[in-house]
Amino acid sequence: MVRDWAAVFDLDTDAEDFSEHLDREWFRGRPYRHLPEARHGVERGTAIFDDAVVRGYPSIPRALVLEAAVKARFEGPVAVEEKLDGYNVRIARIDGDLLALTRSGFVCPYTTAKVAELLDLDGFFADYPEQMLCGELIGPENPYTEHDYPEVEEAAFYVFDVRHRETGDPMAVPRRRECCAEYGLDAVGHYGTFAPEAAAEAAIETVRDLDALGREGVVLKSVDGERALKYTTSAVHRSDLEHAFALPFDYGRDFLFTRVMREAFQTVEFDESPEEARERARKLGEAILLPAVETVRAVEADEAVGDTHTVRADPAVVEALLSYFRDKGLKLAVERDEREGDQRVVEFTKIARSTQDKTAYFLEGGTVDE
Amino acid sequence: MVRDWAAVFDLDTDAEDFSEHLDREWFRGRPYRHLPEARHGVERGTAIFDDAVVRGYPSIPRALVLEAAVKARFEGPVAVEEKLDGYNVRIARIDGDLLALTRSGFVCPYTTAKVAELLDLDGFFADYPEQMLCGELIGPENPYTEHDYPEVEEAAFYVFDVRHRETGDPMAVPRRRECCAEYGLDAVGHYGTFAPEAAAEAAIETVRDLDALGREGVVLKSVDGERALKYTTSAVHRSDLEHAFALPFDYGRDFLFTRVMREAFQTVEFDESPEEARERARKLGEAILLPAVETVRAVEADEAVGDTHTVRADPAVVEALLSYFRDKGLKLAVERDEREGDQRVVEFTKIARSTQDKTAYFLEGGTVDE
Repeated sequence: MVRDWAAVFDLDTDAEDFSEHLDREWFRGRPYRHLPEARHGVERGTAIFDDAVVRGYPSIPRALVLEAAVKARFEGPVAVEEKLDGYNVRIARIDGDLLALTRSGFVCPYTTAKVAELLDLDGFFADYPEQMLCGELIGPENPYTEHDYPEVEEAAFYVFDVRHRETGDPMAVPRRRECCAEYGLDAVGHYGTFAPEAAAEAAIETVRDLDALGREGVVLKSVDGERALKYTTSAVHRSDLEHAFALPFDYGRDFLFTRVMREAFQTVEFDESPEEARERARKLGEAILLPAVETVRAVEADEAVGDTHTVRADPAVVEALLSYFRDKGLKLAVERDEREGDQRVVEFTKIARSTQDKTAYFLEGGTVDE
Repeated sequence: MVRDWAAVFDLDTDAEDFSEHLDREWFRGRPYRHLPEARHGVERGTAIFDDAVVRGYPSIPRALVLEAAVKARFEGPVAVEEKLDGYNVRIARIDGDLLALTRSGFVCPYTTAKVAELLDLDGFFADYPEQMLCGELIGPENPYTEHDYPEVEEAAFYVFDVRHRETGDPMAVPRRRECCAEYGLDAVGHYGTFAPEAAAEAAIETVRDLDALGREGVVLKSVDGERALKYTTSAVHRSDLEHAFALPFDYGRDFLFTRVMREAFQTVEFDESPEEARERARKLGEAILLPAVETVRAVEADEAVGDTHTVRADPAVVEALLSYFRDKGLKLAVERDEREGDQRVVEFTKIARSTQDKTAYFLEGGTVDE
C-alpha cells in the first residue's frame, strides 16, 4: 500500500515534490527515507519506513527575555523541566524493531544499540505501540556531543516527551511523567508546575541553580504538552562557544552572534550590576578567544584538530557507525581502538577540515579581503 | 562622445551588461553613475561623469599572520605607513570641478565642501590633472565615522595614495610623499622602508606602539605602490566591536567573527603568555557584551539607538547631505541644529532600525528558532 503522503502530512504541495526533499538511507538492510530539513510544514527529521511514519521532533522556540516570553506564550499552568545537553533521540517500534532516530531522522545504529542495551522498552511499547519516546541521550560516550554529567558514567537516556509517532501529538506532562515512572524510564528533572505569573520567576531561579552546576537550562511547557519554550544558562552559552571556537572556521560564525545576544538579554533580565556584567563579559571573552588561540597553535604544530568522541558497543555496531560517518564524507582520525570483553571501544576525531585548512592558509601568509 | 566602456575597463562582459550594475546619482544638478559593488573586474566605487572615469580604490588584502604574509607578498623593499580610521576618500578634478568620492563612488556633498575648505589643491591639480588624491578623512566631525585623533579637532585629510584617475595606476611611494610635501598636503605617517625580511618585524613593533595609542594599524606597500597589505591593532578590533555591538542587530554578526579571528592569530604571532592571552580575551569580551547590554537597556527605556554624528558646513551643503541620507531611506533623529557664524552645525543619529525593532521584539517576549 502506498499512502497519500499529501494527506498524511497535510502538505502545501504534492507528494512527489515533497519526496524530492527526502534522503534515502538503509538500516540493517532495510531502506527508509527521512527529511533532513523542515519542508512544506513537515518537521525536520520526519522519517518514513514503508507505510509507517516517525514524525520529526518540533523545534522549540527560544526566549531571550523569559518573563516577557512566558507572558506572551502561556495562559494556563506551566511545567518547568530541565533541558539536558546531549542529543535529541526519538525511539519508536516499527514492525517489532526498536529504532532510535537522531534529530535529522537518521536511524543511528549506535544509538539504537545503546538504547536497546540501556532500556527495557517492551512494556512501554506493548501498551503504547503508536507512541514514540522523545528524550536526550547524554553522557561522555556517544558519537555526537560531549557534555559531562556527574550522574552519567557512559550514556543515559532521559525522556522529555512522549508523542504519537505519526501525528506528533504530545502526551500531557503529568501523564507522561506517570508513564515514565510506571515503565522505569528516567525522566528529565521536573521543578514544578506553576501559574503563568509565577513560572518565569521559578524558571529563572532554576536557571541560576543550573548555571552554578554548569548545566544547560530549562524547557517550560503547558501541561497539555502543546506549547513549549526554552531558555539556557550562561554556562552553556560559554561551553557552546568554547566548543565552537576550538573549531572556529567550522562552527564559529553561526554560534557566536546568537550566544552573545543570549548573554546580553540575560544580563539585562537578571538586572546585573556593572561589576557582574563585566565579569560575565570577561568570561565570555575567554570562552571565545582562548580555544581559538589554542587551535591556531595546534595547527601551527601540525596537530589534527576536530571533535573527539568515544563510542563503546558491539563491533558490528561500531563498524556500521564509522562507515556511516565515512560515507558522509567525514575524515576520521582513530585515536584508540580496543576490545573490552565483547565490546569495541573506539576513540576518534572528526577532523575539522575548514578549520585545519583555513588556519593553515593564514599561517602560510594567506590574506583576506575584509 | 560615448566611450567604449568594455575597452576602458577591460570588461569580461559587454558594456550594456556592466551598465546595469551602475547606480545613477546627481551632484549639483549633474548626473553621474557609480558602481557600489565590484563587478566584472572593475573596482567598487568606480564612477563615470560623462566621458570621465574615476577609478574605484582597490581593496587592500589583510594579513592575519603578518610575517608569513609579508614573505608571501613582497620581494623588494617595503614601505610601512599608518592606516588611519576614518573614511576612504578620492579627490579628483573633472572639468574644473573638485569632487570628493566616498568608497562606493558617491560624490559626497559634505566631503566635497570639507576638502575644498581644508585643502588648497589648485597647484596639485594644475600639475597632475589626470591624477586623483586618495586619502583618509578623519576627525570627529563627519557623517560616517567616529574615531577621535588627538591631532584633529574637527576634520583632516591625510593622503595615502596618488593614482591615475582613469587607470588606477599608483604613484611610487617616494614620489607620492615628495608630492605631498611639495603641495603642502598632509600625508599618513611613514615608519620607514625595509627589506622584506625586516619589514614584518618593523611593522609589528609599529603596531604595538599604535595599539598603545589606540590607533588603527599599518599598511605595507611595495615602493612602486603596486602591492599592499594591511594589518590592524587589537585596539581597533575592540573599538570596531564596541561600535558594532552597540547596534548588534545592524552590525554585530558580520563584524564579530572576523575581529575574533584577527585577535586569535595576533595572540599567536605576538607569542603571548597565558596571562597576556587571558587579558586580551577579557578585554575582547567586554568590548562585545557591554555595549550590547547598554543598548538593550536603552531600548527598554525607549531611547533611540543609532550612530550619532556631527557635521559642520554651509547650510546648503548640510541640507544636501541630510536629504541624501533621507532619500536613501535612513531615519534620522536630529539632536542639535545650530548656526555658528555662516555655518550650520547638526548633530544627528542614524536610527538603527534593526537593532531597535529586534531588541524591542525580544523584550516584548518574541522568540527565536535556534
